[in-house]
Amino acid sequence: MAATQVGRGTVTGGEDRRAQYRSVREQTLSLCASLQIEDYGLQAMPEVSPVRWHLAHTTWYFETFVLRVFDSAYRSPHPAYEQLFNSYYNGVGDPYPRPQRGWLSRPTTAEVLDYRAHVDAAVDRLLQSPVRDADLLQRLVLGLHHEQQHQELILTDLKYNFSHNPLFPEYAPCPSAEVATAVPDQHFRTFPAGCHEIGHGGSDFSFDNERPRHQVYLEAWQIADRPVTNREYKAFIADGGYRRPELWLADGWTECQAAGWEAPLYWVRRDRADLYYTLAGLREVEPDAPVCHVSYYEADAYARWAGARLPLEAEWEVAASQLPVDGNFVESGRLQPAPARPGIGPRQYFGDTWEWTASPYQPYPGYRPFEAELGEYNGKFMCNQMVLRGGSCVTPAGHVRPSYRNFFYPRDRWQFSGIRLASGPAPE
Amino acid sequence: MAATQVGRGTVTGGEDRRAQYRSVREQTLSLCASLQIEDYGLQAMPEVSPVRWHLAHTTWYFETFVLRVFDSAYRSPHPAYEQLFNSYYNGVGDPYPRPQRGWLSRPTTAEVLDYRAHVDAAVDRLLQSPVRDADLLQRLVLGLHHEQQHQELILTDLKYNFSHNPLFPEYAPCPSAEVATAVPDQHFRTFPAGCHEIGHGGSDFSFDNERPRHQVYLEAWQIADRPVTNREYKAFIADGGYRRPELWLADGWTECQAAGWEAPLYWVRRDRADLYYTLAGLREVEPDAPVCHVSYYEADAYARWAGARLPLEAEWEVAASQLPVDGNFVESGRLQPAPARPGIGPRQYFGDTWEWTASPYQPYPGYRPFEAELGEYNGKFMCNQMVLRGGSCVTPAGHVRPSYRNFFYPRDRWQFSGIRLASGPAPE
Amino acid sequence: MAATQVGRGTVTGGEDRRAQYRSVREQTLSLCASLQIEDYGLQAMPEVSPVRWHLAHTTWYFETFVLRVFDSAYRSPHPAYEQLFNSYYNGVGDPYPRPQRGWLSRPTTAEVLDYRAHVDAAVDRLLQSPVRDADLLQRLVLGLHHEQQHQELILTDLKYNFSHNPLFPEYAPCPSAEVATAVPDQHFRTFPAGCHEIGHGGSDFSFDNERPRHQVYLEAWQIADRPVTNREYKAFIADGGYRRPELWLADGWTECQAAGWEAPLYWVRRDRADLYYTLAGLREVEPDAPVCHVSYYEADAYARWAGARLPLEAEWEVAASQLPVDGNFVESGRLQPAPARPGIGPRQYFGDTWEWTASPYQPYPGYRPFEAELGEYNGKFMCNQMVLRGGSCVTPAGHVRPSYRNFFYPRDRWQFSGIRLASGPAPE
Amino acid sequence: MAATQVGRGTVTGGEDRRAQYRSVREQTLSLCASLQIEDYGLQAMPEVSPVRWHLAHTTWYFETFVLRVFDSAYRSPHPAYEQLFNSYYNGVGDPYPRPQRGWLSRPTTAEVLDYRAHVDAAVDRLLQSPVRDADLLQRLVLGLHHEQQHQELILTDLKYNFSHNPLFPEYAPCPSAEVATAVPDQHFRTFPAGCHEIGHGGSDFSFDNERPRHQVYLEAWQIADRPVTNREYKAFIADGGYRRPELWLADGWTECQAAGWEAPLYWVRRDRADLYYTLAGLREVEPDAPVCHVSYYEADAYARWAGARLPLEAEWEVAASQLPVDGNFVESGRLQPAPARPGIGPRQYFGDTWEWTASPYQPYPGYRPFEAELGEYNGKFMCNQMVLRGGSCVTPAGHVRPSYRNFFYPRDRWQFSGIRLASGPAPE
Repeated sequence: MAATQVGRGTVTGGEDRRAQYRSVREQTLSLCASLQIEDYGLQAMPEVSPVRWHLAHTTWYFETFVLRVFDSAYRSPHPAYEQLFNSYYNGVGDPYPRPQRGWLSRPTTAEVLDYRAHVDAAVDRLLQSPVRDADLLQRLVLGLHHEQQHQELILTDLKYNFSHNPLFPEYAPCPSAEVATAVPDQHFRTFPAGCHEIGHGGSDFSFDNERPRHQVYLEAWQIADRPVTNREYKAFIADGGYRRPELWLADGWTECQAAGWEAPLYWVRRDRADLYYTLAGLREVEPDAPVCHVSYYEADAYARWAGARLPLEAEWEVAASQLPVDGNFVESGRLQPAPARPGIGPRQYFGDTWEWTASPYQPYPGYRPFEAELGEYNGKFMCNQMVLRGGSCVTPAGHVRPSYRNFFYPRDRWQFSGIRLASGPAPE
Repeated sequence: MAATQVGRGTVTGGEDRRAQYRSVREQTLSLCASLQIEDYGLQAMPEVSPVRWHLAHTTWYFETFVLRVFDSAYRSPHPAYEQLFNSYYNGVGDPYPRPQRGWLSRPTTAEVLDYRAHVDAAVDRLLQSPVRDADLLQRLVLGLHHEQQHQELILTDLKYNFSHNPLFPEYAPCPSAEVATAVPDQHFRTFPAGCHEIGHGGSDFSFDNERPRHQVYLEAWQIADRPVTNREYKAFIADGGYRRPELWLADGWTECQAAGWEAPLYWVRRDRADLYYTLAGLREVEPDAPVCHVSYYEADAYARWAGARLPLEAEWEVAASQLPVDGNFVESGRLQPAPARPGIGPRQYFGDTWEWTASPYQPYPGYRPFEAELGEYNGKFMCNQMVLRGGSCVTPAGHVRPSYRNFFYPRDRWQFSGIRLASGPAPE
Repeated sequence: MAATQVGRGTVTGGEDRRAQYRSVREQTLSLCASLQIEDYGLQAMPEVSPVRWHLAHTTWYFETFVLRVFDSAYRSPHPAYEQLFNSYYNGVGDPYPRPQRGWLSRPTTAEVLDYRAHVDAAVDRLLQSPVRDADLLQRLVLGLHHEQQHQELILTDLKYNFSHNPLFPEYAPCPSAEVATAVPDQHFRTFPAGCHEIGHGGSDFSFDNERPRHQVYLEAWQIADRPVTNREYKAFIADGGYRRPELWLADGWTECQAAGWEAPLYWVRRDRADLYYTLAGLREVEPDAPVCHVSYYEADAYARWAGARLPLEAEWEVAASQLPVDGNFVESGRLQPAPARPGIGPRQYFGDTWEWTASPYQPYPGYRPFEAELGEYNGKFMCNQMVLRGGSCVTPAGHVRPSYRNFFYPRDRWQFSGIRLASGPAPE
Repeated sequence: MAATQVGRGTVTGGEDRRAQYRSVREQTLSLCASLQIEDYGLQAMPEVSPVRWHLAHTTWYFETFVLRVFDSAYRSPHPAYEQLFNSYYNGVGDPYPRPQRGWLSRPTTAEVLDYRAHVDAAVDRLLQSPVRDADLLQRLVLGLHHEQQHQELILTDLKYNFSHNPLFPEYAPCPSAEVATAVPDQHFRTFPAGCHEIGHGGSDFSFDNERPRHQVYLEAWQIADRPVTNREYKAFIADGGYRRPELWLADGWTECQAAGWEAPLYWVRRDRADLYYTLAGLREVEPDAPVCHVSYYEADAYARWAGARLPLEAEWEVAASQLPVDGNFVESGRLQPAPARPGIGPRQYFGDTWEWTASPYQPYPGYRPFEAELGEYNGKFMCNQMVLRGGSCVTPAGHVRPSYRNFFYPRDRWQFSGIRLASGPAPE
């Protein structure tokens, strides 16, 4: 039987599994080290959740999908938690309304930390017993990947929530930008037409939406070796990018007009300088860093302006599949995308920013959801959203894979989402 | 020159004035003694504010309207506070958007308490100097009444915010209801037609909206000697009160339908019992206590159903003007309206619940707003709102007067608002 | 027994009554003479109704409140009309949703005209029989006044609906403005403090909301002898009237900002000239004509800017009660307010524009609604609206009285509503 | 050079081309033969347009894209038409707001018919001249297909608009349902895995979105030989289909809850019978006819409930590409989907109902939009919508092709949209 991989490690036995669980769970708490109690409760739009809720919900996962199933002696600290910290699993019950998560001051942060400790202790006991059940192991591993997804959301949501405060709070004193080195020109690499395989096929962990591995026919295409930079994006703005409907999808133009977009999210203009809010506070826009916090609509409009297009997710995956999964992940502490290093060759496929693809989020042929209530994990969202690839500067290292599919609505901008260009085939 | 009264005391000299300031300011903090840090930030609708914001805004009042004007050496802890804690004074600047007050985790509660201490020290220093300026004194006294208004709002807003939490947090273990004594039948007292005087005419403190004292001609009227009880209101519900449009104002019926009202705010039905959320948690509805948390629309519909009407504010004031300003105020610690005591005679005009009157909130003839930016305190709200009288069980004792005019929109229900009936004159 | 007056005539016997009915009903149709079939169906906001609906609803009145009650042999052309053309009488049944009246192409205009003829014939037959029932007569007369109200609404609603068409349709070639004569300066007339009587007391017709006649105590006041002109209002605009929150009520400022008001409704700026849409098409703003199509909020802000205030409805009625009810009514064919004629003395109280008063629409003491379902005619709207007085250039002559109370929400602008200033008493 | 096909005819020379133009344009008018003038103006939601607007907009197409380009002597009847009847071509100018098309009573229907005649005469003159310009011909042919699309919309929009009228107007006395014959059981036909070609490759007419013809790799699949019937769909309803979130996509469930869906659009329940509104008025639901007026969300939920899925558009096209393009189109006059005829083999791929596919509307590889302003025809809508295939009972015969791609939002229900099931490949 194949090993089950979480993060960068490989689970080979009971001890490792307990250590791995502890490690991932502690990593979540370490993200909160600089927070004030007040920060844990913020929710400035329905799509984001308070940090406290993230801490509780990831715990609820293990309580609901592991302990309640495999540990008959387990008792929850409070019966109301089942509803309060259910995100969207209708199979489990009626979740507390998502837009109101910010209205919950109780349980307090201390009580939620107690809840975490209570569940962690129970899981640890369960893992000390000789584990025979493959399902338990799968649910546990899934829970750790789930926890890592919420680690990223803790940071993206916090950034959004903080950004509405005129004090522009500093989450962490991120390392200042390295001395500027010339970012290499953008080059395109060509791939041939034909049948390619994409998706996750191995026995190690993946989400259900990455499976099965399957063939897809692609025409010849070209794909840029690095993401679009802020400097390049500013040329689009300067050229009237936000005022020219012919560059936009119809729904994108409607959104742009209604929301009054004039630049990526978090950009503010002060005294003729472009600044943006970062997790280290307000800073000058770095011209050579990849543009970030753009919607699919903006990415698509930029690509059209540039005479290019966004890559299909299959094109992206084929191009990325032989590259090392290295990059500017959350562990770098930068928490902003970094300028490309000099040199040649493909870069920044992983980390820095998620990259919008031109592919709607749909099931692969033969897709089979996780079982039971966990079937709601991914499958029911396969409509109206677009696939993003590659992870970002707030993704935990080891969490992403070439086959990893993230997905958001085309209007969403609060994720660390950027742009890589593609082109071809030549029109008919 | 007349003494300036705040609360129950009378200001006669510098020492008393400093003590009085300290006393009112400390009373605000004492209301927060049982709160968790997490509770200070909640805002579950635009109309309510977080406790932390109330603590800062009342401080901002003294900083803006006293210290900045009379103490040239005063320095604010942070320049952004001027905008962040401005409620609605356009004359001072552009206030931070009201619906987003719950999105501010910074300044933290501790920092806001420091802000309070900083301003309190500066005010105390200012009051130690020989005060000659009558304007300073007036602004100071107004600030203390303003602080008392926010003391009440801290409790009404907190109740609203807590009510959305399925854990139904307990703010305080309020004394349980006294042993039920038969509430006396409702009797009506008759007043004769003629010219009556209402409004505040003395030199002691009142808000600008209570002035000037003036004549009003009233037809003969009758007014109930006690408020409507929960028991009586339940008869209205049982008789289809919430399903019969003929009992309602047109706008009220629209609101009732749109919001799905079936009972007063905070009532929940569980296992065939009527419960309501109180600041002591979920409790059974007390049949003999005055009905509370009804909108003007519900009060009006109830009165129509009962063959009566709501009193005009002038009728109420004439009836109340000779009564002692005693009652169930916040100091009782009950934090819920209490059943009427046995006996005869008018009762519960003051405390327990604010009483909706049939009078729109309009300026009195010859009304003159407070001066300068403080002119925005009351006058600009004199449209679309209805007058309530008498204070409630969360009003500080000594804060209300017979001439005191509170005002809310006819749809509002989160205040401790109840019903006193009136009737007459006989129709034409 | 007193005669029952409708319009300008006095009903003294059967023949006159039939003629009067015919006359009022025909007047409604004559307003439609210039319309295309397409025009009858427009509804550009929920508050306005299509002309076809007005034609049917006024007919429905006589069918529902006269024929169904007093003519047992009467048969309706279609059972669905009871619901379709019920405006808001919940006592009659569930009305067809108001915002969807524009979605009804059937019954066609021709069918609605047949419906009118059908009902008119039945009413005529009923009136030929010896009428004994005073209730029938009252309902009939009320129906004719009701019809006249809808005559005005046909024009105000049509103007609103037409105004959204870039072709700016011409309803009628109204007489062009007379040669400009100097409009007299604005003078104020003073009235003494004391008890005054207002309201309708006689036995001739009035709406229930004008009764009973009653005393009201008023402080001394002054009231302008003519309305505010466009020229004066443009000075307010030029002085930043729409950009200065200190001039506005809080709710008014919110509405002004949200709706982007910069001038009265129907004003458009083209090539540096101020034009407005009139029922004769787009025309230049006439500087000397009374300003029109302003909301209560704008009227109130203008008055504050001018150092004055709006009159109370009692002040207006006392001032107007001795004046002849003459003026620029719909019969003039002008369909726009006209400049004041030279000379001195009070003018334009009646006709030209409805005048916003500072009085919320509330019941008079001892108010008794019409009986049965007709009780819904006026009473249930006595909340959130403001009283307007005096009629307008689209009101039928003979329809208004000094005691006549019209009422609209403070944000409403599509009525022919203008401004007359008042002042006093001197502040305390 | 290949002939250019429109509808069923083939354009081979000038005379034919003129006749063809006349024929398609007259067909549009013939759809309006039974309408009342009042019916031409209805718009009951922003997504539908008034019939009068359709008549004008299709004319505007020829004026804007043919006459203004190729006939320098052409003069428009009114300069405002350019804006009024522009649908969404930002390249042409600022269109009149779509949600307000129902607010235009002018130009009247007669004036719009004059506009049509004016443009038709000019086009006819242009076609009489020796035509050399291939671009003119292409734009003309595109205009005729465009006109046919609006012929269908005239009926779908009219049905929607009429459905809100409690009189349930009859558009036409459609032939009553044939005597019921047993509808054959649903069988599935299997297709093998491999590379297939889809898309339009010939030189005859297609929309840009059908091109280029290209390869796509498909796993083996099965597809039903007939659509889902009302009888089958009622079993889904009876089994709680509208109350079980586990059957729905997340966005679909949100929409279902918010809109209160309980059955397909137009179904009403009366006296325990299921009726639906048809263009012939209210009728009993025909159990054997294909279910119609379901959203993508309902189609998807039904498929999941049935243990199947919806077909990809490529699967559908491969299955349909060898079948004759016959079926129940608008010319049958039925205007409702008809029960399948007995027998075996694939049926009803064309006509009856559009069939939702599981494919988001995206560009084909190498997609090239039409040129100039016509580039806005299709491309800018390639986001957030789903592809439907096959035409419906209100589509003109000859308008659709196997490669034809229709597209609507997944929540849309007012088109004649139904369900064909697919399955396979077996999950991993």
